[in-house]
Amino acid sequence: MQNQQIIFASRPTGAVESGNFALVERPLVPLGDGEVRVRNLYLSLDPYMRGRMSDAKSYADPQPLGEVMMGGTVGEVIESNSARFAVGDKVLAMGGWQLYATQNEKLLQKVDDTHIPLSAFLGPVGMPGVTAWYGLNMICAPKEGETVVVSSASGAVGSVVGQLAKAKGCFVVGIAGGADKCAHVVNDLGFDACIDYKAGNLRDSFKTALGTKRIDAYFDNVGGEILETVLGRMNAFGRLALCGMIAGYDGEPIPIKNPIALLVNRVRLQGFIVTDHMEHWPKAMAELGEVVASGTLKYHETIAQGLASAPEAFVGLLKGKNLGKQLVKLS
Amino acid sequence: MQNQQIIFASRPTGAVESGNFALVERPLVPLGDGEVRVRNLYLSLDPYMRGRMSDAKSYADPQPLGEVMMGGTVGEVIESNSARFAVGDKVLAMGGWQLYATQNEKLLQKVDDTHIPLSAFLGPVGMPGVTAWYGLNMICAPKEGETVVVSSASGAVGSVVGQLAKAKGCFVVGIAGGADKCAHVVNDLGFDACIDYKAGNLRDSFKTALGTKRIDAYFDNVGGEILETVLGRMNAFGRLALCGMIAGYDGEPIPIKNPIALLVNRVRLQGFIVTDHMEHWPKAMAELGEVVASGTLKYHETIAQGLASAPEAFVGLLKGKNLGKQLVKLS
Repeated sequence: MQNQQIIFASRPTGAVESGNFALVERPLVPLGDGEVRVRNLYLSLDPYMRGRMSDAKSYADPQPLGEVMMGGTVGEVIESNSARFAVGDKVLAMGGWQLYATQNEKLLQKVDDTHIPLSAFLGPVGMPGVTAWYGLNMICAPKEGETVVVSSASGAVGSVVGQLAKAKGCFVVGIAGGADKCAHVVNDLGFDACIDYKAGNLRDSFKTALGTKRIDAYFDNVGGEILETVLGRMNAFGRLALCGMIAGYDGEPIPIKNPIALLVNRVRLQGFIVTDHMEHWPKAMAELGEVVASGTLKYHETIAQGLASAPEAFVGLLKGKNLGKQLVKLS
Repeated sequence: MQNQQIIFASRPTGAVESGNFALVERPLVPLGDGEVRVRNLYLSLDPYMRGRMSDAKSYADPQPLGEVMMGGTVGEVIESNSARFAVGDKVLAMGGWQLYATQNEKLLQKVDDTHIPLSAFLGPVGMPGVTAWYGLNMICAPKEGETVVVSSASGAVGSVVGQLAKAKGCFVVGIAGGADKCAHVVNDLGFDACIDYKAGNLRDSFKTALGTKRIDAYFDNVGGEILETVLGRMNAFGRLALCGMIAGYDGEPIPIKNPIALLVNRVRLQGFIVTDHMEHWPKAMAELGEVVASGTLKYHETIAQGLASAPEAFVGLLKGKNLGKQLVKLS
């Protein structure tokens, strides 16, 4: 039996291109002790992967050249040398950009898709959802009536941040690129307002959306000019969860031009990586699973078809072409 | 009886100059109910005053033009219409740049200079000391054996930060401008090392001082390139107390060029103003008073003579010409 894989062929020097990846076929090898074979059903594409494609020192090792691209997956067990997993089990794993993943049982997590769609374990009930949950609850910690702003508001993380903040009784403003995304954020996700950062002057747009309100908490997924503009409108003792900085994922550093605002407004800024906080995952996943199962938490998926479409879909993700969670359907 | 005052004559557009101030004489007026007349003995000069000289929106109202420059003072009561203060009492106040301050009793704090020199209430036992105490204990919160870095290490705040961190068993590195200041920081104040930011390549100097150590906590008084260099050498989960940014006090914003380091190292950054946290002052002042009285905490003062010398001394402070606390002796 043959496996199809997308390997990391070359490190991008600027923007990522499809040519940085290559599709290869390789035979599947027999399972070792404790190993499980999974047919990957969905592959998750996430902004953090851009960071791994660089070999600059970071919190995680870089993606090695010539190897299968790493990535979160959900799939179905098709062969098992483990007492813990049976054929037919649904599992969450870091299965990579490939049709079949062969992994030790310790690296797999069984999931129950009776009430929660399997793909949601890569979105609102998975890493992006827990990222939103952690950053909002543990760092932004907004009180009822406070004003919360989140960038990439239509994305997998931002969409959850805003809805959780609304549920706490906050005034919630999203930031997104384009009128369609903004309409989705307000009409489908229920944010109070959305700023289209591509439409004209950013400061004026903030003024229109916020009126006289100042910002108590900001969940940042982009850095750059948006972060800068938010800093100038924060309330004293504001909190800032620093999550993404996708705006810098083409490799160029993006300065904070006027950090004095951090001091003037006595802002607490916390950079965080959700995998540092595994102890919070069970509670977060339980809470998120409940609101997804009940339909209270809305989420949108952009689904690319077939493994071969993954590079182009990833390039599109970094350019903001997706709405909601970007997935690749593998079979 | 005539009072001498230094008034704020014009807002600086770039660097502060003596010409931004003017010395005037005005008659003293009779005391009202509950008012106290204080002969100011020492005037405190502090970097925050540069911020007040700008009329940009900030956490505090700007210094009004044409009025006496604001500033902390210690002095002696010479006339009292208050039951709470008697002639001869020593008091701490915001008495301003003048020989005599006439103030309501509610704005004065009696101090006991039996075991603590009066001027220390403007330095290690006053606002700068409490700033150091709060930022170190409440934000940097270093554990024994951790590496703590502080900029403006020979200044009124930095000198206390480093000594408090040493007392906690930390490896403490100061940053200061010039060989003399660095020698003072290591030899007199007992820091483990001091980086002279004026001597050659900053990254190399950090490497020499720190070896393979990375930074767990940084108390920032300057912003700019030094902050940038520290960010690149922080440990995961590092803490950063943002206090000063004097480097930007000539009015020009100083960017953080590569804020991605905040995310990569999961840094918690907290801008703070010590007057927001009055509830901590009694404890902080008691602890600082004890180590000053016992001689455990070292401090140095640079003392300008006479009210007329205040503008030039303030210009010098902003250029880093002082060692330790900059004071003006008024009589």
